[in-house]
Amino acid sequence: MNKSDTPAASTRGPADHDVRDQIVAAAKEHFSHYGYEKTTVSDLAKVIGFSKAYIYKFFESKQAIGEMICGGCLGEIEADIRAAVNEADRPPEKLRRLFKAAVDSSLRLFFQDRKLYEIAASACIERWRPTLVYEQRIQELIREILQEGRQSGDFERKTPLDETVMAIYLVMRPFLNPLILQQSFDYAEVAPGQLSSLVLRSLSP
Amino acid sequence: MNKSDTPAASTRGPADHDVRDQIVAAAKEHFSHYGYEKTTVSDLAKVIGFSKAYIYKFFESKQAIGEMICGGCLGEIEADIRAAVNEADRPPEKLRRLFKAAVDSSLRLFFQDRKLYEIAASACIERWRPTLVYEQRIQELIREILQEGRQSGDFERKTPLDETVMAIYLVMRPFLNPLILQQSFDYAEVAPGQLSSLVLRSLSP
Repeated sequence: MNKSDTPAASTRGPADHDVRDQIVAAAKEHFSHYGYEKTTVSDLAKVIGFSKAYIYKFFESKQAIGEMICGGCLGEIEADIRAAVNEADRPPEKLRRLFKAAVDSSLRLFFQDRKLYEIAASACIERWRPTLVYEQRIQELIREILQEGRQSGDFERKTPLDETVMAIYLVMRPFLNPLILQQSFDYAEVAPGQLSSLVLRSLSP
Repeated sequence: MNKSDTPAASTRGPADHDVRDQIVAAAKEHFSHYGYEKTTVSDLAKVIGFSKAYIYKFFESKQAIGEMICGGCLGEIEADIRAAVNEADRPPEKLRRLFKAAVDSSLRLFFQDRKLYEIAASACIERWRPTLVYEQRIQELIREILQEGRQSGDFERKTPLDETVMAIYLVMRPFLNPLILQQSFDYAEVAPGQLSSLVLRSLSP
């Protein structure tokens, strides 16, 4: 089926959303078999049965498709982390859950599928937009927990909030970034507990 | 010059030390031009003017030569860190120096020469012995500073010492391991200050 004669972007209807989803789903499947680096947009066009030009109407590049997949993957990890945090009542326990869920969910999603790991690796190296958004969201989540803990009296209030957020983010970062996580398997079991304990000691009023 | 008919290991004299040094110096030079991965023991033999068999009398493999270079490099970083720590009087300041010197010295040594970085990377991935020794030495240094700070009353004494040592090591680790450091350039400027401040807050009595 050749759809390269479809209306241009300005006249797109709601069905475009479905086409985008279809391209992303097919690309994810194809990448996970053949790898992100080795796949071209022509390969994807062939598999899906679209023309290359038609795919380019929806995504300006292979990276744009990779970014959609990567964004979805990071969105899942963020949802896992938020769910784990929300199960706890008190800010200190929320912070513990944050560390534990971040490591567990990242390990599961990045390494259950080596080819998806490859997309995540490209995303980190080239600093794709979804990774920057994800970093900001995790920092926001840390900030929320800290604010709650400062209000409840569980955490100290002397250190500027921005500084505390960034320092805790830096402590967590090796377990959020898949390239670093790969170098940290040996510590993935003990690190969340030990690091969150250290961070909680640093927050005591 | 072919030295393959030289006496065996059991009868080695003091001059063997010089031969080893000569091989290591030539290998370091060669690796830094052509890369560790691409160089073979035959290449080194040709450059130095020894037979391959003669080199194998001193080093059982290319990795063994790489380990000597790597060990020397890590020894330099450790010496830099110790010198910086010893400049400070009080344990809190020693801990700050430890973080700062570790990042500065690692950045300088691993990245001043991309080909030496490659050896360091192989060492980390394959967990060569010098990297394990280095990890232990850094942990010992952290322990010394903590013990001094616990005695002087600068640091809390409730948390088991082993746990505190390991947690602080985990916080520092992303800036000690060259593969992780490569992913952390963006934070290399702010991280030592922010992380050591967080760690010091966690140690307050």
